[in-house]
Amino acid sequence: MNEAVAPLLLEDPGVRRFLSVARVARLATASAQAVPHTVPLCFWFDGVNFYFVIDQKPKRHRGLKLKRMRNIAENPCVSLLIDHYEEDWSHLAYVLINGRARIVEGREEYMLALRNLRDKYPQYRDMALSYGVNLMVRNEQLDVHVWGARFKEADTSS
Amino acid sequence: MNEAVAPLLLEDPGVRRFLSVARVARLATASAQAVPHTVPLCFWFDGVNFYFVIDQKPKRHRGLKLKRMRNIAENPCVSLLIDHYEEDWSHLAYVLINGRARIVEGREEYMLALRNLRDKYPQYRDMALSYGVNLMVRNEQLDVHVWGARFKEADTSS
Repeated sequence: MNEAVAPLLLEDPGVRRFLSVARVARLATASAQAVPHTVPLCFWFDGVNFYFVIDQKPKRHRGLKLKRMRNIAENPCVSLLIDHYEEDWSHLAYVLINGRARIVEGREEYMLALRNLRDKYPQYRDMALSYGVNLMVRNEQLDVHVWGARFKEADTSS
Repeated sequence: MNEAVAPLLLEDPGVRRFLSVARVARLATASAQAVPHTVPLCFWFDGVNFYFVIDQKPKRHRGLKLKRMRNIAENPCVSLLIDHYEEDWSHLAYVLINGRARIVEGREEYMLALRNLRDKYPQYRDMALSYGVNLMVRNEQLDVHVWGARFKEADTSS
């Protein structure tokens, strides 16, 4: 398991609340040649790291063949964005986690993340997702930025 | 003005409709060292290119000092994601535009984009945004992917 200590920002109660209600994140990866790529994804946050699973897709898109996974294989640097949009822009907010993506190797860690993803997203419960077949990725954060009036003192947007 | 021809995908009526109702996009940039970064942003799509403006922020974050603008200055490759999330996952969808970001130099193009951004987002009307002060970026697409049942035949996700 990962031994990194969560930056204090992720321990802020307002940030925790924001992350706990968010249903979707956007992940940016980049090839070794610095060409970025971005996708929406569902995630589980364990208080330190963010997890996402590669679920069922048409054959040609599965697993390591996905652009996001090819990028991660050659360049583990990733940027994970969790934001809130509404028409009253005084309520706009985001949490940005820049870090590294690692494929989860251990079965115990995999099963824990899968269980929690299924708790959070009932949609995953009917999907055949299994260790050794569907890749699980752990996003380890290196730095965290938060932006938005709701976070006030924690604002560190860049 | 840009002479690139819009890929046929962006001329698909379903894709056009999807882009016309979307209120927020996510932009991924990468430093020359291939470290990705991502932010939410508001955009105007003119049928070929995507425009966004750097609006007012605290002084230290303004214009070229923003991480996204530092990245664009050293590496114009960007990835722009417009997606739709809802709990019925059969309705998930996204349009992904990989391309290059260019700072708008011409006043005419700048004013046209600003007028359209203000038409689309009344929130911009009360902001002091002006040519020579607030940077405007034009995202030129090099390739476009769409994903989601609603697009059916146009699906080219990667």
